[in-house]
Amino acid sequence: MRVKEVPENTLNRLSVYLSVLEDLERKKIEAISSEDLARKCGVNSAQLRKDLSFVGNLGTKGVGYNIRSLKFSLKTFLGRAQEWNLILGGLSPLGIFLLENKDLQREGFYFMAAFDHREENIGKIYNGVSVYNLDQLSYVFKAIRVDIGVITAEDNPEVYLDAFVNQGLKAILNLSKVPLFVENRDVKVENLSFSTALTKLSYFLKDKI
Amino acid sequence: MRVKEVPENTLNRLSVYLSVLEDLERKKIEAISSEDLARKCGVNSAQLRKDLSFVGNLGTKGVGYNIRSLKFSLKTFLGRAQEWNLILGGLSPLGIFLLENKDLQREGFYFMAAFDHREENIGKIYNGVSVYNLDQLSYVFKAIRVDIGVITAEDNPEVYLDAFVNQGLKAILNLSKVPLFVENRDVKVENLSFSTALTKLSYFLKDKI
Repeated sequence: MRVKEVPENTLNRLSVYLSVLEDLERKKIEAISSEDLARKCGVNSAQLRKDLSFVGNLGTKGVGYNIRSLKFSLKTFLGRAQEWNLILGGLSPLGIFLLENKDLQREGFYFMAAFDHREENIGKIYNGVSVYNLDQLSYVFKAIRVDIGVITAEDNPEVYLDAFVNQGLKAILNLSKVPLFVENRDVKVENLSFSTALTKLSYFLKDKI
Repeated sequence: MRVKEVPENTLNRLSVYLSVLEDLERKKIEAISSEDLARKCGVNSAQLRKDLSFVGNLGTKGVGYNIRSLKFSLKTFLGRAQEWNLILGGLSPLGIFLLENKDLQREGFYFMAAFDHREENIGKIYNGVSVYNLDQLSYVFKAIRVDIGVITAEDNPEVYLDAFVNQGLKAILNLSKVPLFVENRDVKVENLSFSTALTKLSYFLKDKI
Protein backbone atom coordinates (compact mmCIF):
# COMPACT_ATOMS: atom_id res chain seq x y z
CA MET A 1 0.00 0.00 0.00
CA ARG A 2 1.33 3.37 -1.03
CA VAL A 3 1.75 5.80 1.86
CA LYS A 4 -0.68 8.69 1.45
CA GLU A 5 1.08 11.99 1.91
CA VAL A 6 -2.04 14.08 2.33
CA PRO A 7 -2.99 14.50 6.01
CA GLU A 8 -6.60 13.69 6.96
CA ASN A 9 -7.49 17.30 7.81
CA THR A 10 -6.09 18.49 4.47
CA LEU A 11 -8.17 15.87 2.69
CA ASN A 12 -11.26 17.10 4.54
CA ARG A 13 -10.56 20.63 3.37
CA LEU A 14 -9.82 19.60 -0.23
CA SER A 15 -13.20 17.85 -0.35
CA VAL A 16 -14.81 21.06 0.91
CA TYR A 17 -12.99 23.15 -1.71
CA LEU A 18 -14.34 20.86 -4.44
CA SER A 19 -17.95 21.30 -3.27
CA VAL A 20 -17.53 25.07 -3.04
CA LEU A 21 -16.03 25.22 -6.55
CA GLU A 22 -18.90 23.13 -7.94
CA ASP A 23 -21.32 25.63 -6.42
CA LEU A 24 -19.44 28.58 -7.93
CA GLU A 25 -19.51 26.86 -11.33
CA ARG A 26 -23.29 26.34 -11.05
CA LYS A 27 -23.50 30.07 -10.36
CA LYS A 28 -21.59 30.72 -13.63
CA ILE A 29 -18.66 32.37 -11.86
CA GLU A 30 -15.47 31.91 -13.87
CA ALA A 31 -12.63 33.15 -11.70
CA ILE A 32 -12.03 33.94 -8.02
CA SER A 33 -9.17 35.39 -5.99
CA SER A 34 -7.56 33.11 -3.45
CA GLU A 35 -8.76 35.47 -0.66
CA ASP A 36 -12.41 35.20 -1.76
CA LEU A 37 -12.21 31.46 -2.32
CA ALA A 38 -10.55 31.00 1.07
CA ARG A 39 -13.31 32.98 2.79
CA LYS A 40 -16.01 30.86 1.13
CA CYS A 41 -14.18 27.73 2.31
CA GLY A 42 -13.77 28.87 5.91
CA VAL A 43 -9.95 29.05 5.82
CA ASN A 44 -7.35 31.78 5.32
CA SER A 45 -5.65 32.14 1.96
CA ALA A 46 -2.28 30.83 3.21
CA GLN A 47 -4.01 27.61 4.26
CA LEU A 48 -5.85 27.38 0.95
CA ARG A 49 -2.67 27.82 -1.08
CA LYS A 50 -0.81 25.30 1.07
CA ASP A 51 -3.58 22.72 0.66
CA LEU A 52 -3.83 23.29 -3.08
CA SER A 53 -0.09 22.81 -3.46
CA PHE A 54 -0.81 19.08 -2.98
CA VAL A 55 -2.98 19.25 -6.08
CA GLY A 56 -0.46 21.24 -8.08
CA ASN A 57 -2.82 24.00 -9.24
CA LEU A 58 -1.37 27.25 -7.98
CA GLY A 59 -3.56 29.81 -9.74
CA THR A 60 -2.21 32.89 -11.47
CA LYS A 61 -0.77 35.79 -9.52
CA GLY A 62 -3.08 38.83 -9.71
CA VAL A 63 -5.82 36.82 -11.46
CA GLY A 64 -6.56 34.13 -8.93
CA TYR A 65 -8.07 30.78 -9.81
CA ASN A 66 -9.95 29.74 -12.90
CA ILE A 67 -12.85 27.88 -11.33
CA ARG A 68 -13.40 25.21 -14.00
CA SER A 69 -9.73 24.40 -14.20
CA LEU A 70 -9.21 24.22 -10.44
CA LYS A 71 -12.35 22.10 -10.07
CA PHE A 72 -11.06 19.75 -12.74
CA SER A 73 -7.64 19.40 -11.05
CA LEU A 74 -9.26 18.77 -7.69
CA LYS A 75 -11.73 16.23 -9.07
CA THR A 76 -8.94 14.28 -10.71
CA PHE A 77 -6.72 14.48 -7.63
CA LEU A 78 -9.54 13.27 -5.37
CA GLY A 79 -10.56 10.39 -7.60
CA ARG A 80 -13.85 12.02 -8.46
CA ALA A 81 -13.23 12.21 -12.20
CA GLN A 82 -14.23 8.56 -12.37
CA GLU A 83 -17.43 6.73 -11.42
CA TRP A 84 -17.75 4.48 -8.40
CA ASN A 85 -20.01 1.49 -7.76
CA LEU A 86 -21.77 1.33 -4.41
CA ILE A 87 -23.70 -1.31 -2.54
CA LEU A 88 -26.03 -0.63 0.34
CA GLY A 89 -26.25 -2.63 3.57
CA GLY A 90 -29.46 -2.52 5.60
CA LEU A 91 -32.77 -1.33 4.20
CA SER A 92 -33.65 1.37 6.73
CA PRO A 93 -35.65 4.51 5.88
CA LEU A 94 -32.31 6.28 5.30
CA GLY A 95 -31.18 3.44 3.03
CA ILE A 96 -34.37 3.66 0.96
CA PHE A 97 -34.00 7.44 0.83
CA LEU A 98 -30.48 7.11 -0.60
CA LEU A 99 -31.51 4.51 -3.18
CA GLU A 100 -34.40 6.67 -4.37
CA ASN A 101 -32.51 9.95 -4.40
CA LYS A 102 -30.54 10.70 -7.55
CA ASP A 103 -28.10 13.24 -6.12
CA LEU A 104 -25.28 10.77 -5.53
CA GLN A 105 -25.77 9.32 -9.01
CA ARG A 106 -25.34 12.78 -10.50
CA GLU A 107 -22.01 12.98 -8.69
CA GLY A 108 -20.79 9.67 -10.08
CA PHE A 109 -21.74 7.32 -7.23
CA TYR A 110 -23.98 4.47 -8.45
CA PHE A 111 -25.81 2.01 -6.23
CA MET A 112 -25.61 -1.41 -7.91
CA ALA A 113 -27.31 -3.58 -5.29
CA ALA A 114 -28.76 -3.44 -1.79
CA PHE A 115 -28.60 -6.08 0.91
CA ASP A 116 -30.83 -6.87 3.83
CA HIS A 117 -31.42 -9.84 6.11
CA ARG A 118 -35.22 -9.64 6.44
CA GLU A 119 -36.99 -12.01 4.06
CA GLU A 120 -39.85 -9.57 3.36
CA ASN A 121 -37.45 -7.04 1.83
CA ILE A 122 -35.61 -9.40 -0.51
CA GLY A 123 -36.54 -8.88 -4.17
CA LYS A 124 -37.83 -5.34 -3.71
CA ILE A 125 -36.52 -2.81 -6.23
CA TYR A 126 -35.84 0.85 -5.50
CA ASN A 127 -34.99 3.12 -8.41
CA GLY A 128 -33.78 0.10 -10.37
CA VAL A 129 -31.66 -1.30 -7.53
CA SER A 130 -32.59 -4.80 -6.30
CA VAL A 131 -32.50 -5.91 -2.69
CA TYR A 132 -30.66 -9.20 -2.13
CA ASN A 133 -30.23 -11.38 0.91
CA LEU A 134 -26.89 -10.74 2.59
CA ASP A 135 -26.14 -14.45 2.00
CA GLN A 136 -25.95 -13.68 -1.74
CA LEU A 137 -23.17 -11.13 -1.29
CA SER A 138 -20.42 -13.27 -2.81
CA TYR A 139 -22.48 -13.93 -5.95
CA VAL A 140 -22.98 -10.20 -6.47
CA PHE A 141 -19.27 -9.55 -5.92
CA LYS A 142 -18.51 -12.11 -8.63
CA ALA A 143 -20.91 -10.46 -11.07
CA ILE A 144 -20.04 -6.77 -10.68
CA ARG A 145 -17.24 -4.50 -9.58
CA VAL A 146 -18.03 -3.06 -6.15
CA ASP A 147 -16.03 -0.09 -4.82
CA ILE A 148 -17.78 1.31 -1.78
CA GLY A 149 -20.17 -0.16 0.78
CA VAL A 150 -22.71 2.17 2.37
CA ILE A 151 -24.09 0.90 5.67
CA THR A 152 -27.54 2.13 6.67
CA ALA A 153 -28.67 -0.75 8.87
CA GLU A 154 -30.68 0.17 11.95
CA ASP A 155 -29.62 -2.88 13.92
CA ASN A 156 -26.27 -4.63 14.07
CA PRO A 157 -24.55 -2.58 11.34
CA GLU A 158 -21.33 -4.47 12.21
CA VAL A 159 -22.79 -7.55 10.47
CA TYR A 160 -22.71 -5.65 7.16
CA LEU A 161 -19.26 -4.24 7.85
CA ASP A 162 -17.84 -7.71 8.50
CA ALA A 163 -19.55 -9.20 5.44
CA PHE A 164 -18.38 -6.37 3.15
CA VAL A 165 -14.79 -6.45 4.42
CA ASN A 166 -14.72 -10.27 4.12
CA GLN A 167 -15.53 -9.88 0.43
CA GLY A 168 -12.51 -7.60 0.11
CA LEU A 169 -14.27 -4.23 0.08
CA LYS A 170 -11.80 -1.47 0.99
CA ALA A 171 -14.03 1.57 1.46
CA ILE A 172 -17.06 1.89 3.73
CA LEU A 173 -19.38 4.79 4.41
CA ASN A 174 -21.15 4.05 7.68
CA LEU A 175 -24.37 6.02 8.18
CA SER A 176 -25.76 3.85 10.94
CA LYS A 177 -26.07 5.21 14.45
CA VAL A 178 -23.18 3.05 15.69
CA PRO A 179 -19.69 4.30 14.73
CA LEU A 180 -17.66 1.44 13.27
CA PHE A 181 -13.89 0.92 13.03
CA VAL A 182 -11.58 -1.67 11.53
CA GLU A 183 -8.03 -2.42 12.56
CA ASN A 184 -6.97 -3.34 9.01
CA ARG A 185 -5.35 -0.18 7.64
CA ASP A 186 -6.06 -1.24 4.09
CA VAL A 187 -9.73 -0.59 4.77
CA LYS A 188 -11.09 2.91 5.25
CA VAL A 189 -14.33 3.52 7.14
CA GLU A 190 -15.95 6.95 7.12
CA ASN A 191 -18.49 7.40 9.90
CA LEU A 192 -21.17 10.00 9.27
CA SER A 193 -24.02 10.60 11.67
CA PHE A 194 -26.59 13.37 12.07
CA SER A 195 -26.66 12.64 15.76
CA THR A 196 -22.88 13.00 16.24
CA ALA A 197 -22.92 16.33 14.39
CA LEU A 198 -25.84 17.55 16.51
CA THR A 199 -24.01 16.44 19.65
CA LYS A 200 -21.12 18.75 18.76
CA LEU A 201 -23.60 21.61 18.42
CA SER A 202 -25.28 20.74 21.70
CA TYR A 203 -21.92 20.89 23.46
CA PHE A 204 -21.29 24.29 21.90
CA LEU A 205 -24.71 25.58 23.04
CA LYS A 206 -24.73 24.02 26.49
CA ASP A 207 -23.12 26.91 28.34
CA LYS A 208 -24.78 29.65 26.32
CA ILE A 209 -28.40 29.31 27.37
CA MET B 1 -17.90 33.76 25.15
CA ARG B 2 -16.27 31.25 27.44
CA VAL B 3 -13.17 29.66 25.94
CA LYS B 4 -13.81 25.98 25.27
CA GLU B 5 -10.94 23.89 26.51
CA VAL B 6 -11.85 20.79 24.55
CA PRO B 7 -10.08 20.60 21.17
CA GLU B 8 -12.27 19.91 18.12
CA ASN B 9 -10.79 16.45 17.49
CA THR B 10 -11.35 15.45 21.12
CA LEU B 11 -14.94 16.62 20.84
CA ASN B 12 -15.37 14.47 17.71
CA ARG B 13 -14.08 11.47 19.59
CA LEU B 14 -16.21 12.13 22.70
CA SER B 15 -19.31 12.20 20.46
CA VAL B 16 -18.24 8.87 19.00
CA TYR B 17 -17.69 7.37 22.47
CA LEU B 18 -21.23 8.39 23.44
CA SER B 19 -22.75 6.63 20.40
CA VAL B 20 -20.72 3.49 21.06
CA LEU B 21 -21.76 3.46 24.73
CA GLU B 22 -25.43 3.87 23.75
CA ASP B 23 -25.07 0.85 21.49
CA LEU B 24 -23.45 -1.21 24.27
CA GLU B 25 -26.28 -0.23 26.59
CA ARG B 26 -28.88 -1.35 24.01
CA LYS B 27 -27.00 -4.66 23.93
CA LYS B 28 -27.40 -4.91 27.74
CA ILE B 29 -23.68 -4.86 28.40
CA GLU B 30 -22.96 -3.41 31.82
CA ALA B 31 -19.21 -2.94 32.04
CA ILE B 32 -16.25 -2.80 29.67
CA SER B 33 -12.48 -2.54 30.03
CA SER B 34 -10.83 0.57 28.67
CA GLU B 35 -8.96 -1.58 26.12
CA ASP B 36 -12.16 -3.10 24.75
CA LEU B 37 -13.97 0.23 24.72
CA ALA B 38 -11.01 1.89 22.99
CA ARG B 39 -10.97 -0.80 20.29
CA LYS B 40 -14.69 -0.33 19.64
CA CYS B 41 -14.09 3.41 19.33
CA GLY B 42 -11.13 3.15 16.95
CA VAL B 43 -8.55 4.62 19.36
CA ASN B 44 -5.95 3.25 21.74
CA SER B 45 -6.71 3.12 25.45
CA ALA B 46 -4.26 5.93 26.32
CA GLN B 47 -6.16 8.23 23.94
CA LEU B 48 -9.49 7.11 25.37
CA ARG B 49 -8.41 7.78 28.95
CA LYS B 50 -6.95 11.14 28.01
CA ASP B 51 -10.16 12.19 26.25
CA LEU B 52 -12.35 10.98 29.10
CA SER B 53 -10.28 12.96 31.59
CA PHE B 54 -12.08 16.05 30.21
CA VAL B 55 -15.33 14.47 31.33
CA GLY B 56 -14.02 13.49 34.73
CA ASN B 57 -15.10 9.84 34.65
CA LEU B 58 -12.00 7.75 35.06
CA GLY B 59 -13.41 4.25 35.48
CA THR B 60 -12.22 1.82 38.11
CA LYS B 61 -8.82 0.14 37.94
CA GLY B 62 -9.20 -3.57 37.15
CA VAL B 63 -12.95 -3.24 36.53
CA GLY B 64 -13.07 -0.75 33.68
CA TYR B 65 -16.03 1.43 32.97
CA ASN B 66 -19.61 1.06 34.07
CA ILE B 67 -21.40 1.72 30.82
CA ARG B 68 -24.54 3.44 32.15
CA SER B 69 -22.55 5.70 34.41
CA LEU B 70 -20.00 6.68 31.75
CA LYS B 71 -22.79 7.26 29.22
CA PHE B 72 -24.56 9.51 31.73
CA SER B 73 -21.39 11.54 32.42
CA LEU B 74 -20.71 11.95 28.72
CA LYS B 75 -24.30 12.92 27.91
CA THR B 76 -24.27 15.59 30.56
CA PHE B 77 -20.84 16.86 29.55
CA LEU B 78 -21.86 17.08 25.88
CA GLY B 79 -25.15 18.86 26.56
CA ARG B 80 -27.17 15.84 25.49
CA ALA B 81 -28.93 15.35 28.81
CA GLN B 82 -31.31 18.14 27.79
CA GLU B 83 -33.66 18.52 24.79
CA TRP B 84 -33.01 20.85 21.88
CA ASN B 85 -35.41 22.64 19.56
CA LEU B 86 -34.64 22.54 15.85
CA ILE B 87 -35.92 24.36 12.80
CA LEU B 88 -35.43 23.20 9.24
CA GLY B 89 -34.48 25.40 6.29
CA GLY B 90 -35.34 24.24 2.78
CA LEU B 91 -37.90 21.54 2.04
CA SER B 92 -35.78 19.14 -0.05
CA PRO B 93 -36.28 15.36 -0.09
CA LEU B 94 -33.64 15.13 2.67
CA GLY B 95 -35.49 17.80 4.67
CA ILE B 96 -38.77 15.90 4.39
CA PHE B 97 -36.98 12.68 5.31
CA LEU B 98 -35.64 14.26 8.51
CA LEU B 99 -39.02 15.71 9.48
CA GLU B 100 -40.74 12.37 8.98
CA ASN B 101 -38.10 10.25 10.67
CA LYS B 102 -38.35 9.98 14.44
CA ASP B 103 -34.76 8.98 15.20
CA LEU B 104 -33.58 12.49 16.07
CA GLN B 105 -36.65 13.03 18.24
CA ARG B 106 -35.77 9.89 20.20
CA GLU B 107 -32.36 11.42 20.85
CA GLY B 108 -33.82 14.68 22.17
CA PHE B 109 -33.74 16.81 19.00
CA TYR B 110 -37.20 18.17 18.15
CA PHE B 111 -38.15 19.91 14.93
CA MET B 112 -40.49 22.78 15.83
CA ALA B 113 -40.98 24.39 12.41
CA ALA B 114 -39.76 24.19 8.83
CA PHE B 115 -39.15 27.04 6.38
CA ASP B 116 -39.22 27.24 2.64
CA HIS B 117 -39.51 29.99 0.05
CA ARG B 118 -41.77 28.22 -2.47
CA GLU B 119 -45.41 29.21 -2.06
CA GLU B 120 -46.69 25.69 -2.87
CA ASN B 121 -44.92 24.23 0.17
CA ILE B 122 -46.14 26.74 2.76
CA GLY B 123 -48.75 25.31 5.11
CA LYS B 124 -47.82 21.68 4.53
CA ILE B 125 -47.38 19.59 7.67
CA TYR B 126 -44.91 16.73 8.10
CA ASN B 127 -45.13 14.63 11.23
CA GLY B 128 -46.83 17.53 13.01
CA VAL B 129 -44.28 20.14 11.87
CA SER B 130 -45.66 23.05 9.81
CA VAL B 131 -43.87 24.64 6.88
CA TYR B 132 -43.71 28.45 7.03
CA ASN B 133 -42.53 31.04 4.58
CA LEU B 134 -39.00 32.17 5.42
CA ASP B 135 -40.46 35.71 5.76
CA GLN B 136 -42.25 34.50 8.88
CA LEU B 137 -39.02 33.51 10.63
CA SER B 138 -39.03 36.38 13.14
CA TYR B 139 -42.60 35.57 14.23
CA VAL B 140 -41.65 31.97 14.91
CA PHE B 141 -38.56 33.07 16.86
CA LYS B 142 -40.79 35.24 19.05
CA ALA B 143 -43.17 32.36 19.72
CA ILE B 144 -40.79 29.51 20.51
CA ARG B 145 -37.26 28.85 21.70
CA VAL B 146 -35.08 27.79 18.79
CA ASP B 147 -31.67 26.23 19.42
CA ILE B 148 -30.38 24.70 16.21
CA GLY B 149 -31.05 25.39 12.54
CA VAL B 150 -30.78 22.47 10.12
CA ILE B 151 -30.24 23.52 6.51
CA THR B 152 -31.42 21.08 3.83
CA ALA B 153 -32.08 23.53 0.98
CA GLU B 154 -31.15 22.31 -2.50
CA ASP B 155 -30.55 25.80 -3.88
CA ASN B 156 -28.97 28.81 -2.22
CA PRO B 157 -28.60 27.32 1.26
CA GLU B 158 -26.74 30.51 2.24
CA VAL B 159 -30.10 32.35 2.25
CA TYR B 160 -31.24 30.16 5.16
CA LEU B 161 -27.90 30.50 6.95
CA ASP B 162 -28.06 34.31 6.77
CA ALA B 163 -31.69 34.42 7.87
CA PHE B 164 -31.09 32.05 10.80
CA VAL B 165 -27.96 33.86 11.99
CA ASN B 166 -29.73 37.24 11.67
CA GLN B 167 -32.34 35.96 14.11
CA GLY B 168 -29.55 35.18 16.57
CA LEU B 169 -29.28 31.44 16.02
CA LYS B 170 -25.89 30.19 17.24
CA ALA B 171 -25.79 26.59 16.00
CA ILE B 172 -26.30 25.37 12.44
CA LEU B 173 -26.19 21.89 10.95
CA ASN B 174 -25.70 22.29 7.22
CA LEU B 175 -26.70 19.23 5.19
CA SER B 176 -26.89 21.01 1.83
CA LYS B 177 -24.37 20.20 -0.87
CA VAL B 178 -22.62 23.57 -0.42
CA PRO B 179 -20.34 23.81 2.64
CA LEU B 180 -21.09 27.01 4.57
CA PHE B 181 -18.94 29.05 6.95
CA VAL B 182 -19.43 32.12 9.11
CA GLU B 183 -16.76 34.49 10.37
CA ASN B 184 -18.60 35.19 13.62
CA ARG B 185 -16.99 32.87 16.16
CA ASP B 186 -20.10 32.96 18.34
CA VAL B 187 -21.84 30.88 15.68
CA LYS B 188 -20.94 27.26 15.03
CA VAL B 189 -21.70 25.63 11.70
CA GLU B 190 -21.32 21.88 11.27
CA ASN B 191 -21.14 20.82 7.62
CA LEU B 192 -22.19 17.26 6.90
CA SER B 193 -22.38 15.86 3.41
CA PHE B 194 -22.65 12.36 1.96
CA SER B 195 -20.78 13.56 -1.07
CA THR B 196 -17.80 14.94 0.91
CA ALA B 197 -17.52 11.67 2.83
CA LEU B 198 -17.65 9.66 -0.39
CA THR B 199 -14.99 11.93 -1.91
CA LYS B 200 -12.61 10.99 0.90
CA LEU B 201 -13.24 7.33 0.12
CA SER B 202 -12.76 7.88 -3.61
CA TYR B 203 -9.37 9.49 -2.90
CA PHE B 204 -8.43 6.49 -0.78
CA LEU B 205 -9.48 4.05 -3.53
CA LYS B 206 -8.08 5.97 -6.47
CA ASP B 207 -4.64 4.39 -6.48
CA LYS B 208 -5.80 0.94 -5.46
CA ILE B 209 -7.73 -0.13 -8.55
